Amino acid sequence: MSDQTVGHTADGVTGRGSSSGAGTDAGRDASGGEPDLAALVGRLDALQRSIASYAYAQNLMNYDAQTVAPAAGAALCGEAMGVMAARGHDLLAGDDTRALLDALDARLDELDDLHRDELRVLRRDHDEQRRVPAQMAADWQRLLAEAYPVWRAAKAADDYASWEPYVDRIVAALRAQAACLDPARPAYDVWLDQFARGCSIQLCDRFFAQVRTTVVPLLDAIVHAGQPDAPAFVHARVPLDAQRALSDAIARLIGLDPARLTFGRTEHPFTLALSRDDVRIAHHWHVDDVLAGVYTTVHEGGHSLYEQHVDPRYDFTCLAGGASADVHESQSRLMENMVGRSRPFMDALLPLLRDAAPDPYARVSADELYRAVNRVEPSLVRTEADELTYSLHIMVRYEVEKRLMAGELSAHDAPAAWNEFTQRYLGIQVPDDAHGILQDAHWAMGYVGYFPSYALGNAYAAQFMAAMRAQRAAKGIDVDAAVSAGDLSPITSWLAEHLWRRGKSADPQQLIADACGAPFDPSFYTRYLVEKFSGIYGL
Amino acid sequence: MSDQTVGHTADGVTGRGSSSGAGTDAGRDASGGEPDLAALVGRLDALQRSIASYAYAQNLMNYDAQTVAPAAGAALCGEAMGVMAARGHDLLAGDDTRALLDALDARLDELDDLHRDELRVLRRDHDEQRRVPAQMAADWQRLLAEAYPVWRAAKAADDYASWEPYVDRIVAALRAQAACLDPARPAYDVWLDQFARGCSIQLCDRFFAQVRTTVVPLLDAIVHAGQPDAPAFVHARVPLDAQRALSDAIARLIGLDPARLTFGRTEHPFTLALSRDDVRIAHHWHVDDVLAGVYTTVHEGGHSLYEQHVDPRYDFTCLAGGASADVHESQSRLMENMVGRSRPFMDALLPLLRDAAPDPYARVSADELYRAVNRVEPSLVRTEADELTYSLHIMVRYEVEKRLMAGELSAHDAPAAWNEFTQRYLGIQVPDDAHGILQDAHWAMGYVGYFPSYALGNAYAAQFMAAMRAQRAAKGIDVDAAVSAGDLSPITSWLAEHLWRRGKSADPQQLIADACGAPFDPSFYTRYLVEKFSGIYGL
Repeated sequence: MSDQTVGHTADGVTGRGSSSGAGTDAGRDASGGEPDLAALVGRLDALQRSIASYAYAQNLMNYDAQTVAPAAGAALCGEAMGVMAARGHDLLAGDDTRALLDALDARLDELDDLHRDELRVLRRDHDEQRRVPAQMAADWQRLLAEAYPVWRAAKAADDYASWEPYVDRIVAALRAQAACLDPARPAYDVWLDQFARGCSIQLCDRFFAQVRTTVVPLLDAIVHAGQPDAPAFVHARVPLDAQRALSDAIARLIGLDPARLTFGRTEHPFTLALSRDDVRIAHHWHVDDVLAGVYTTVHEGGHSLYEQHVDPRYDFTCLAGGASADVHESQSRLMENMVGRSRPFMDALLPLLRDAAPDPYARVSADELYRAVNRVEPSLVRTEADELTYSLHIMVRYEVEKRLMAGELSAHDAPAAWNEFTQRYLGIQVPDDAHGILQDAHWAMGYVGYFPSYALGNAYAAQFMAAMRAQRAAKGIDVDAAVSAGDLSPITSWLAEHLWRRGKSADPQQLIADACGAPFDPSFYTRYLVEKFSGIYGL
Repeated sequence: MSDQTVGHTADGVTGRGSSSGAGTDAGRDASGGEPDLAALVGRLDALQRSIASYAYAQNLMNYDAQTVAPAAGAALCGEAMGVMAARGHDLLAGDDTRALLDALDARLDELDDLHRDELRVLRRDHDEQRRVPAQMAADWQRLLAEAYPVWRAAKAADDYASWEPYVDRIVAALRAQAACLDPARPAYDVWLDQFARGCSIQLCDRFFAQVRTTVVPLLDAIVHAGQPDAPAFVHARVPLDAQRALSDAIARLIGLDPARLTFGRTEHPFTLALSRDDVRIAHHWHVDDVLAGVYTTVHEGGHSLYEQHVDPRYDFTCLAGGASADVHESQSRLMENMVGRSRPFMDALLPLLRDAAPDPYARVSADELYRAVNRVEPSLVRTEADELTYSLHIMVRYEVEKRLMAGELSAHDAPAAWNEFTQRYLGIQVPDDAHGILQDAHWAMGYVGYFPSYALGNAYAAQFMAAMRAQRAAKGIDVDAAVSAGDLSPITSWLAEHLWRRGKSADPQQLIADACGAPFDPSFYTRYLVEKFSGIYGL
């Protein structure tokens, strides 16, 4: 059967008046009197389903563009995405929605917990969407559409000068938007808070100061102690089919539900959850770097576990998905580093590696593997950094971003600042901007204020692990022994209960306080790093 | 970089007020006076872009579901599709659109050809969407959602009794919808016309009578003459990677633009064009049937060529895509059979087959290949039928559908009718309903009246080929010699000029008349079949 035209004809045949309510009219009282509560709640449910559907469509177009679509299709796909984005915006920010939220707020006491949580989160999203004027938002979209290809070309050509004006324009636009979102706060504060709810310059300054005073001297000691070359086995050739199967095995090992997961191929790996029931890891397997593929799987697997375990009652509501970027990164880095690069995990991983690549892994011991995956080496590129130096890369970006957004640093002077912070924190020289300030796509995508989420995620993860260990130990459960035996459930069941299931119903600092019984404390992280790497390097 | 949450946050950051007009308000004259023509045309353009965007979203969700998505995600994907379908319907059928179409109709003389064509097609779509009441359309969607899994289970279990009530319900629903769409015509006429514009029972009766009187005796003669077994090489094992590369080579050979094409994997192959710049062949490669993969590529390649060559001015308008199902099938079957199974094509195909599978194809001659790919054998399953018997399978379906829709045949008696027509046309006994009336998904998807498009497509194709050959010969171009040498451009450039570029701007019978200089005449097809297969079988 070849149903090319069935697909087209279906628009005409099946498109007719599906009963799903895309608007917010459902539940209006036809008599003109005050609508009853059930009708209002019905409208709230329908509105969220519609908003989620437009996000679903945009997310799918994004995923598809990065994994499957021919590049030539991008322009027309962009048209469709623009229509979806505009409609999603209209639904979220519209006057009908405002009226509905007001009507429900007036009857808050009569709502159940679920709808009360939804109303709170939806109100915040609604308010934020309305605060930025439509013209400013449209200009911003155009600027981003223009900027991204310029950045890509600038990185490829190591030509910062062509990119420099866009840095100034992006920073200016984000400052203007921040002034709309919250005129009382510094612009950078506003954007930190967008990506990591509750985050601020003050919190980051304190956090990074602690990282700096601990990690910089530790790295210095490691570098000066010297170490042998990396073992040859890390660059063994492993066929991609075998690596693909290894990723499936690792997904099972860490507890992902394979029926609700799929792998795709892309250049830069990422995870995207279209829904709790459809989580996608866009992966990049390299024939001569099987361990990179393993840790991409474990890292993205952490994101995926989170999404698969959100409370099903939140499906297609504003509470679906992870709390915010910092908490999401905490789960990926917890799984990648604190579990996936722990000594016990080597006992579980090695048999899978030996299945996938008997040559050379039949001859590699768990201890050798442990050292290889925890090798510390200051490097230029964030995405290739080891666990210890990773947060130092983030610190470089934080210091530069903070100054740019405060107006203390111009785009023109930013590369020099970047290079100086890299020298100061990582002890290495930046040879060119392509390996320096041009390396990341974030600013070109408009994400200024996102980077700290990665480092905060590391720190939350250490605190979560400590709380989990304490609570498991109190029940007599030996977490390390379980991991060695390939059973991660003592960890994952704790995360599911205390974090994952809660979706967006609580903000990061609340989640930490509830899960750990104490506010965020970065010393769990710095202590963890010192203990782990002092041990490995015998310091 | 792991940007799981970037994707999520992007809804909040980038979703704000894109300037693409999703509604139909753009261009309204703020002064309250009569809107100027440019503003009306601007609204028409924006409306079509929006409608196309919702179709794009639904098509992508469909393609994704059949190639990539985990099955568990289907329910929530269905929610999103329902929202897209409802919004697309509202835009197409709404009162705003009616008012816009009326305002433009009143000024038809002032419009350019492009917008006049758009207005005509959009008006027809609009009228049809409005004629079916919303409740009837919603009930229909629910019936289909319920029916499809029942059919699947019934086919798997060879249990027609469980499926029988749905046949009655689907037929009743389609009769009721047809009465809304056009009460003056028989219901089956209305649905034939939905899939093949201008088609009717009268046209089909005449067409199939001619097929019957020609093909049934020809098949009888071939079967009675007897033939040796199929050669062993057709079942040689060819690795899937090599077959995948072969499909790329064939796509280039037939003239597809690889930059605007992508292959995916699925169970039942199909082509879907998200846009002219993003055409997708969902393929199924079988390790022990390389020729099936070759002809899937050539067949779907015909659909894809059509979509890639529609006039770019029609992008994201109601004129984009192929004219209707019958014309689309004419292009796939033209490419598959009249080009792809022609003797000259063997000379072009064999080198590619030898590259992909030197064992056994280095030892196969072009004449042996020609006989192998044109082997005639009456069989039970339509999708596996050869070129000669294919239209006989369609005739079986046509006769059963026509009687069901006329109320002359009940669902209960349909299997007996199916089996009787199969015996009469194909000369074989149907052993069970799974290989009989339960084999096709079409009715379960609501497509009653679609099947004749396949057979009509065959017949159009023969007439197109004859016209193309005559026009090329008049210019001294030897089409067969070009194909032998791997140059299909004398064929494809003619099709592009006379058919493909015109998109939906003309209906099938008009396209045939314009391209061939004469109305549709099925004798081109029957003559072609008699000549080709009499030659192969020495009759």
